Amino acid sequence: MIENRKDDHIRIASEQNVEEGNNLFNEVYLIHIALPEIDFDDVDTSMTIFGKKLSFPFIIGAMTGGTEIAEKINAILAKCAEEFGIGMYVGSQRVAIVKPETARSFRVVAENAPTALKIANLGAPQVSRLNERVLSDWVSQAIDMINADAIAIHLNPAQEVFQPEGEPWFRGVTDRLRFIKKIANRPLIIKEVGNGISMEVARTLVSRVGPDAIDVAGTGGTSFIRIESIRARAINEANIFSGWGIPTVLSICEVRNVYDGFIIASGGVRSGLDGAKAIAIGANAFSMSRPLLLSALKGYDETKKFIDNLFREFKATMFLTGSKNISELSRAPVVL
Amino acid sequence: MIENRKDDHIRIASEQNVEEGNNLFNEVYLIHIALPEIDFDDVDTSMTIFGKKLSFPFIIGAMTGGTEIAEKINAILAKCAEEFGIGMYVGSQRVAIVKPETARSFRVVAENAPTALKIANLGAPQVSRLNERVLSDWVSQAIDMINADAIAIHLNPAQEVFQPEGEPWFRGVTDRLRFIKKIANRPLIIKEVGNGISMEVARTLVSRVGPDAIDVAGTGGTSFIRIESIRARAINEANIFSGWGIPTVLSICEVRNVYDGFIIASGGVRSGLDGAKAIAIGANAFSMSRPLLLSALKGYDETKKFIDNLFREFKATMFLTGSKNISELSRAPVVL
Amino acid sequence: MIENRKDDHIRIASEQNVEEGNNLFNEVYLIHIALPEIDFDDVDTSMTIFGKKLSFPFIIGAMTGGTEIAEKINAILAKCAEEFGIGMYVGSQRVAIVKPETARSFRVVAENAPTALKIANLGAPQVSRLNERVLSDWVSQAIDMINADAIAIHLNPAQEVFQPEGEPWFRGVTDRLRFIKKIANRPLIIKEVGNGISMEVARTLVSRVGPDAIDVAGTGGTSFIRIESIRARAINEANIFSGWGIPTVLSICEVRNVYDGFIIASGGVRSGLDGAKAIAIGANAFSMSRPLLLSALKGYDETKKFIDNLFREFKATMFLTGSKNISELSRAPVVL
Amino acid sequence: MIENRKDDHIRIASEQNVEEGNNLFNEVYLIHIALPEIDFDDVDTSMTIFGKKLSFPFIIGAMTGGTEIAEKINAILAKCAEEFGIGMYVGSQRVAIVKPETARSFRVVAENAPTALKIANLGAPQVSRLNERVLSDWVSQAIDMINADAIAIHLNPAQEVFQPEGEPWFRGVTDRLRFIKKIANRPLIIKEVGNGISMEVARTLVSRVGPDAIDVAGTGGTSFIRIESIRARAINEANIFSGWGIPTVLSICEVRNVYDGFIIASGGVRSGLDGAKAIAIGANAFSMSRPLLLSALKGYDETKKFIDNLFREFKATMFLTGSKNISELSRAPVVL
Ligand SMILES: Cc1cc2nc3c(=O)[nH]c(=O)nc-3n(C[C@H](O)[C@H](O)[C@H](O)COP(=O)(O)O)c2cc1C
Ligand SMILES: Cc1cc2nc3c(=O)[nH]c(=O)nc-3n(C[C@H](O)[C@H](O)[C@H](O)COP(=O)(O)O)c2cc1C
Ligand SMILES: Cc1cc2nc3c(=O)[nH]c(=O)nc-3n(C[C@H](O)[C@H](O)[C@H](O)COP(=O)(O)O)c2cc1C
Ligand SMILES: Cc1cc2nc3c(=O)[nH]c(=O)nc-3n(C[C@H](O)[C@H](O)[C@H](O)COP(=O)(O)O)c2cc1C
Repeated sequence: MIENRKDDHIRIASEQNVEEGNNLFNEVYLIHIALPEIDFDDVDTSMTIFGKKLSFPFIIGAMTGGTEIAEKINAILAKCAEEFGIGMYVGSQRVAIVKPETARSFRVVAENAPTALKIANLGAPQVSRLNERVLSDWVSQAIDMINADAIAIHLNPAQEVFQPEGEPWFRGVTDRLRFIKKIANRPLIIKEVGNGISMEVARTLVSRVGPDAIDVAGTGGTSFIRIESIRARAINEANIFSGWGIPTVLSICEVRNVYDGFIIASGGVRSGLDGAKAIAIGANAFSMSRPLLLSALKGYDETKKFIDNLFREFKATMFLTGSKNISELSRAPVVL
Repeated sequence: MIENRKDDHIRIASEQNVEEGNNLFNEVYLIHIALPEIDFDDVDTSMTIFGKKLSFPFIIGAMTGGTEIAEKINAILAKCAEEFGIGMYVGSQRVAIVKPETARSFRVVAENAPTALKIANLGAPQVSRLNERVLSDWVSQAIDMINADAIAIHLNPAQEVFQPEGEPWFRGVTDRLRFIKKIANRPLIIKEVGNGISMEVARTLVSRVGPDAIDVAGTGGTSFIRIESIRARAINEANIFSGWGIPTVLSICEVRNVYDGFIIASGGVRSGLDGAKAIAIGANAFSMSRPLLLSALKGYDETKKFIDNLFREFKATMFLTGSKNISELSRAPVVL
Repeated sequence: MIENRKDDHIRIASEQNVEEGNNLFNEVYLIHIALPEIDFDDVDTSMTIFGKKLSFPFIIGAMTGGTEIAEKINAILAKCAEEFGIGMYVGSQRVAIVKPETARSFRVVAENAPTALKIANLGAPQVSRLNERVLSDWVSQAIDMINADAIAIHLNPAQEVFQPEGEPWFRGVTDRLRFIKKIANRPLIIKEVGNGISMEVARTLVSRVGPDAIDVAGTGGTSFIRIESIRARAINEANIFSGWGIPTVLSICEVRNVYDGFIIASGGVRSGLDGAKAIAIGANAFSMSRPLLLSALKGYDETKKFIDNLFREFKATMFLTGSKNISELSRAPVVL
Repeated sequence: MIENRKDDHIRIASEQNVEEGNNLFNEVYLIHIALPEIDFDDVDTSMTIFGKKLSFPFIIGAMTGGTEIAEKINAILAKCAEEFGIGMYVGSQRVAIVKPETARSFRVVAENAPTALKIANLGAPQVSRLNERVLSDWVSQAIDMINADAIAIHLNPAQEVFQPEGEPWFRGVTDRLRFIKKIANRPLIIKEVGNGISMEVARTLVSRVGPDAIDVAGTGGTSFIRIESIRARAINEANIFSGWGIPTVLSICEVRNVYDGFIIASGGVRSGLDGAKAIAIGANAFSMSRPLLLSALKGYDETKKFIDNLFREFKATMFLTGSKNISELSRAPVVL
């Protein structure tokens, strides 16, 4: 059952070592400025996306929904998003459309984060099999369910191919993405789930879809190849494809090369320093999933503390690079 | 006795760690395509070599013959080759020509794989000492013994020089290879046994022999220097020459630089992912020996499962690089 | 209290592992000259800075003052400076200005090192908050307190931002530095405290301040991010920013690129060999802090022995590169 | 006493780990030739130096003399040199000139190796202090003592500077070397003792001395800095200067760049494969010291076996690179 799979993902992602590959953040060096010419309190970390102002350019990653435990996690994350004035994705909402009795687990997000930036979520393989009428309806349902400010479609071919009950269907996906862009009435985000977006794919998206943002979700953080291989008891396969995909740092650079829209950095981002590096090399915001799953399972206080540290690391990096605001950070000198 | 040596090779290759050197497959990166625009089931892995169609471009490596255990191994491998529709080399057939009573151990291959691509096998040093009449006869015997579709001659100077009873005779070999090409009536494959073919050697082969295929058998997999040094109790020598030769990935590139015929990648290929990488950098098919020896010693079921996994890894890689067929895979972008 | 902080620094710096990052001295190779064409005794290690002659180009680093233990350390270091004919910085003198009863801990330096090169010390954040009249007075007090030959202002934004009671105030600092340069009546040294001076900062200093010397104090030695994080019990933060800053060797090269004044190499310099390398790549003198803290805590004899070894390593390096004097050493061929 | 020092060297060099630094032989790759076009028995390893033919281009390194144990070692090494038809250096002969009663320990070399290539040996620092008349006499004595075919002068500034009783005297050495070249009546070899000859030094030797051979004795084998530091109980110093000098492979390349005479490769050469690499990158012969000390201490049979293995490794490498003779080996393609 689809709900079992959701709980499997939470359990495996939280109990096992499922991070792998090299995101290359360690190869990115920001230049220390010994003479910042500002006070720490002069640093302005805020920014605006899709008309909403964030206190700093951070978006809680897409994770879950559809089960009891998912509901608890979503409620905690949403509360924090509201409190900090940051953004939040939900996990794939197919489960709630197919089984409406599970929709509550998503609705808690709108309830707990009434003003925060909220992003709906559906998967490419499903989208590829629906006709335009049904697809239109799913998109509306997903958006309405959480009163979303934007909708994300995730591309996850590696997950589908290694998932025991996977649906590796990508024929016709590009046309469906363009259709969604046309009818959604909300900004469209295209995201991966941990194997990265290459320059080739970004080029296709630019010329045939026209997304409002791309979330690279590159290699070097949570690996769905490993998660699904653990579920399938196919560890050997996981080892062979360990590190498959495009390191997050490379993916940011490749996408930036051909796309001048909004780029969200994710996949192994693990600190405010990583987030600041991502922005310095071309991203506009950053996102993080698994570490927030771990905090949320510990509760609301832990999660608040986690995000607070993230914020302080990010602001410290801005200060130490002499960046008064996000636009200065994006021009900070960087060594690769 | 030559049969004892054959069993020594099987025993040492299966019981000891005889793989060494760096094949460099880990330095080859295929680009993940998040938007493959095909379904997994659309992927066509088949290809054709010497007029025979393989279900995927894999050839079981040259290993053995001449003893009872070799016969069992050959029978299992041949059954699998037939079932999967892939190719198969046999080991050096000299033993069966010199001692015709051992020929059965090769004939089982024709019996169990009547329609599969089968490749006969002789060694360069032996070939160098026969006069043209006898050589002609040996070649015919080797081909007829297994009803071979092609004949391979292996170049193994390192093995011969470190083998206690070695025959490091390479004077005149090139001329004999050209003679075989002329009289064999079958495609001629020149292969190494784990130390690789350099650009210099490929150039000589192109200008003076004209082979139909080159199997690079590079460094980074089974090491015959180590196997023979273990037999000779000369481990120090093995350590000094550890990694001697041309890494498989380099050897593919070097040969492709000067040769536009069929290239078989081998030497440390250990997964369908490695195989797909080999094709993306210039090979046409791939081959593997020692891992199949290990499976065959465990039995038919293990061997089937092993090849099945190999196939699935290979097909998954094609899907994740958005390659609909082998020709698209051979043009897949690659980072070295 | 400020004195507690001083003793914290001494305790943590001496008892814990607070060195991190890569200073890159291991990537600098001096060329061995098998035929030096001089005797060891012909080597002249002496040099002159701000009109004072040093027996070799070494300056004891800026460390402490303000407490009882600091007084003992300063006395020992000053005695050694006098005896060897080398230079010495004192630690930040703010404490002694704010609490004049602690000034003795600095005055011992003048008493024990009447003729040695002595350098006064104040911090940038403090300086940024004083008006010109008060600032003028502080500078005079600091200089007079130790009868200083020069005054150093340290830039320490990373320390301030991670320090629990930190004062990350850098607005207006550059203008204050220019003011000090104008009124100090002594050479002005600008120094970091272990995160390095970048080319950007050096350029600002050159165009807007005009310092007489720059002490790079780069990454790869004592880390104040780690020291302050230990005090704040924020080890996670320390790990995230571990190695932050500009490696000492790079910092020397970056500063030399835009500045033709006197450069002092520090930050992880740990031997006379490192010191000689620093000079060969563009520095004029070298300095070291934490190792001298460790020696001083062991006593006068240990400290003397330590500096004597340093001297012998430095002179041996000059001999083995065939350098008769400092000017030849600064032209010694070097491989990076 | 000087004899004690000689026995110290033997004891420390044989009982402790005194090899360090990277000779870079592991970064030199010879190209495997799968089709050598010769038989192993066709390989001719012989060569000629100073009019003497060696069975393969190997010279036993300069080590010892002056004590009882040194005499035994020298006798064993000389016997082997004679038997294999290779060359042999003796250790510094100063001891035998200053204390003639110890000369026997060198004379055994002439007795046991009447026809082999023998090389006399004196040190640069000593040479620098003798007037021309005395120097002339020392050179004659050294040559006559072993009936030498050539004389080597060793440059060892690092050893002298770290040696407790060292004589780091190099003023005037170059002129003395030219004087020796003029009067010796034998070919003159200039050698290091494990820290290498740089291009600068080679240039000086070429323009002002004109030696008949240069033995690079580079970094990456026996370290006299370590040996002398162990004697002086100054391990810290040894660690600081660990790896000081020019890696043997680099030293060969640097010297070859400016010198077209005979180059002997030594310093960490540890196999016939290393020796063959040295020749492929520009040396004419190779030499080895410490491993032969270890064999000689085990006796004559061990030493014979050791040299025999060396010979076989060297010949195998020639075969596997398709080199019929030394001149072909010196043109074998090589990857650095
Ligand atoms: C438990 C779990 C469930 C996830 N479910 C979804 C999902 O439903 N939809 C989606 O777009 N991404 C999903 N992801 C992927 C994340 O959004 C993110 O791209 C990936 O985890 C990489 O980020 P990280 O390294 O910070 O975890 C999930 C991740 C985790 C850990
Ligand atoms: C036990 C054993 C026996 C072999 N015998 C032969 C042989 O008779 N003829 C031959 O051409 N290669 C022989 N080979 C070499 C293989 O064909 C292959 O080139 C080599 O093992 C490298 O591939 P691998 O790393 O996948 O094992 C043998 C290999 C093994 C392990
Ligand atoms: C205990 C301690 C106290 C220090 N206090 C000062 C200070 O007051 N003023 C200053 O300019 N630098 C201070 N420093 C920084 C040093 O001067 C130096 O820049 C830094 O330690 C890097 O050098 P090292 O790696 O040789 O220790 C201090 C260092 C230590 C270890
Ligand atoms: C015990 C010992 C004594 C040595 N004595 C001398 C010597 O008297 N004269 C000399 O030129 N080199 C001497 N050497 C240096 C060697 O000739 C050689 O240059 C050095 O050991 C590096 O070679 P290796 O790494 O093969 O040992 C000695 C080496 C050893 C191990």
